[in-house]
Amino acid sequence: MNIDSIKATVIDDRTKGIPGGTEPFALSEIGRKGWNVLREDLPLPLMVLKRSSLDHNASVFGAYLASHHLSLAPHGKTTMAPQIFAEQLANGAWGITAATANQVQVMRAYGVSRIILANQLVGKGNVLAIAQEINADPDFDFLCFIDSAAQLDNMARQLDGVTLGHPIRLLIEVGVVGGRTGVRSVAEALTLSNAIAAADSSKFRFAGIATFEGVAPGLDRSVEPVADLANTLLEIARSLPKAHYAGLDEFILSGGGSSYFDIIADRFSTLALDIPVRVLLRSGCYVTNDSGSYKNAQDAAKADPHRSWKSELKPALEAWAYVQSRPEENLAFLTMGKRDIPFDSGLPKPFKLYRPGVGFLDVGQCEVFATNDQHAYVRLGPGTDWRVGDLVASGISHPCTAFDKWRLIPVVDDEYNVIDGVMTFF
Amino acid sequence: MNIDSIKATVIDDRTKGIPGGTEPFALSEIGRKGWNVLREDLPLPLMVLKRSSLDHNASVFGAYLASHHLSLAPHGKTTMAPQIFAEQLANGAWGITAATANQVQVMRAYGVSRIILANQLVGKGNVLAIAQEINADPDFDFLCFIDSAAQLDNMARQLDGVTLGHPIRLLIEVGVVGGRTGVRSVAEALTLSNAIAAADSSKFRFAGIATFEGVAPGLDRSVEPVADLANTLLEIARSLPKAHYAGLDEFILSGGGSSYFDIIADRFSTLALDIPVRVLLRSGCYVTNDSGSYKNAQDAAKADPHRSWKSELKPALEAWAYVQSRPEENLAFLTMGKRDIPFDSGLPKPFKLYRPGVGFLDVGQCEVFATNDQHAYVRLGPGTDWRVGDLVASGISHPCTAFDKWRLIPVVDDEYNVIDGVMTFF
Repeated sequence: MNIDSIKATVIDDRTKGIPGGTEPFALSEIGRKGWNVLREDLPLPLMVLKRSSLDHNASVFGAYLASHHLSLAPHGKTTMAPQIFAEQLANGAWGITAATANQVQVMRAYGVSRIILANQLVGKGNVLAIAQEINADPDFDFLCFIDSAAQLDNMARQLDGVTLGHPIRLLIEVGVVGGRTGVRSVAEALTLSNAIAAADSSKFRFAGIATFEGVAPGLDRSVEPVADLANTLLEIARSLPKAHYAGLDEFILSGGGSSYFDIIADRFSTLALDIPVRVLLRSGCYVTNDSGSYKNAQDAAKADPHRSWKSELKPALEAWAYVQSRPEENLAFLTMGKRDIPFDSGLPKPFKLYRPGVGFLDVGQCEVFATNDQHAYVRLGPGTDWRVGDLVASGISHPCTAFDKWRLIPVVDDEYNVIDGVMTFF
Repeated sequence: MNIDSIKATVIDDRTKGIPGGTEPFALSEIGRKGWNVLREDLPLPLMVLKRSSLDHNASVFGAYLASHHLSLAPHGKTTMAPQIFAEQLANGAWGITAATANQVQVMRAYGVSRIILANQLVGKGNVLAIAQEINADPDFDFLCFIDSAAQLDNMARQLDGVTLGHPIRLLIEVGVVGGRTGVRSVAEALTLSNAIAAADSSKFRFAGIATFEGVAPGLDRSVEPVADLANTLLEIARSLPKAHYAGLDEFILSGGGSSYFDIIADRFSTLALDIPVRVLLRSGCYVTNDSGSYKNAQDAAKADPHRSWKSELKPALEAWAYVQSRPEENLAFLTMGKRDIPFDSGLPKPFKLYRPGVGFLDVGQCEVFATNDQHAYVRLGPGTDWRVGDLVASGISHPCTAFDKWRLIPVVDDEYNVIDGVMTFF
């Protein structure tokens, strides 16, 4: 399958966001429907992707990668949208990152040829699925995280009696005490590297080391834990026996979510070994950014003279809903909830109000303070004029938990005409 | 379309839960694949539905409804699974409840003939979608909530120039101060009822009053707000001019989620009017119950001598994941996260441990204390023996945010053989 097969997908009004009564149509036709969000052609709630912001972010982030000699395998779990993966690869991404075997399966279905499973591969169903993909395509380059000999044993057990066309490439994951997965010390990394060196080389091959700095404890107070973690990886890279990577084309050093990637990149870029070092970021949220936690992370980087990231990403996701009720003077409800919008890392921020027949009006003082499955609770400030039937657009926080609530996200131009549609595969 | 069309849906390994490399197959074949969760035939994470618990809950809840002379329009937003709707209707449900126009569209696509939109209908795209469904089927009985004259005006404006085959039936929603949607007083209800009486009767017809008691403030301290709210509805029903419901076949009095439905039902059943009263519950979560907030609600009812609900529902949803890492003595990670399991109303509770080649073992002391998109953080007590590659089953809290994370949920027997599959439409 390829992206054309997605464009050929027949959509009907069972899909959230598609007007009731719409006859089934191929996704490729969506831009010719003449639908406009402000004309209320589509039912709300509705999540939309702004084409201009997507393009802006791709351009700005691409320029940063090029000028800093960085590779990118954007985390595909963010969008799980093969159409976006295809744009990212066309823009020069080295590969796509996944978090689960199922995500690998989706990426493979749409022809992604290099996948980094930034997670522990373990368990029969998962390992055999990867083995099958490897054996189906000699050009499929598969890398995954490993953080214990027990995991290596588990993978080896699943592959007992299986011949692999080429080996699984392993990235030793490094974590911090009190953090998430990953070895906790240089000593543990060396022990695991020895185990990999001793394993069946037709099945497993060392490829480098990796981390995810975004969950390091203490980040609520300062960014020091990021630098500390990066330094630990550098120490591990310098401590590993050269024999463990002799003969490789390159040594991969990977980290970088979408909040502290510049710190990681700056540190990692100082590593020199006997073989080339590929500094590989895995940022996933740069592509849409947001109006909450990732916007704040951008602002923090810009305000910090020691940070090298100074560019501006734009929020590409907007959630549209109706004002459905004004039951009390300062209380309003929007027709969107936990099924439609992220709520795990800050609630949506209303920023546009459109009144049919009138036009855009001042959104006023308003704060979403709670959500139920299908409702958003909004506190209104004095004088804020929201009426039942008004359309309200909100910026969201945490793209990863926005995409997963929509099977189809209309892509709009700056006038809110629907010009395309992106399908997700969660 | 009907349920057979769901069974004919072609599934492949892009769908989460389906083994990598599986050739596309019709859903109706899933029970003949010979898949077993404990044999690791399926990739994890995996959400499963236990057939025996579903049947048990349907039977127990059905007996309660029958003995208390109650009608049920189960909230379909919980599962958004037409296969489950069909079972509920076959078990005697009076209709199915929806929360959005899109959910109505899905239900209509699978032939549900009576739908209660337990929410405000508002906005062009939404109102016209409903009008189209009404005009396409004279037997489609559609009811929705209304809580303001502004909403009535909005609906009327969308329907200006539209002829409806039969009217939209309106349920006045009653809420409480500091709560969610709904009129706040008897006086507001009367004003709104007058507005409905004055509206175009070919488009709008009063049908009764309704509430959702589950979001009343103060429920963290006692169940009194539920009884108070029920009493307010009774007062409104008795205060409405008889002319507003004269000529109707029945007066609908609706409430009841899955935590306090017995209190609502007991109060509502005391109402006597000149026309028959239909006490209509909308419980959605009874069908699967859970191992968290709804289990606690059941336990609280059983412990309260003033509550009439004394039956036992069983948790039908289980989330299975691998132990992927044991990076610290008392810390483990499971291969499941915000993409797979509910996290808004309590985190999953591990309750079974299965070690391949060994069998079920004591799950030990363990607590999921955090989740990321694709990881669960687990604190282990002293001596708890979890190994990388072990399978762990967890009970979940809040079915509504469990179903929406899976497009296909395998149905299993008590030996974890996959015997069927339920598709969701979120």
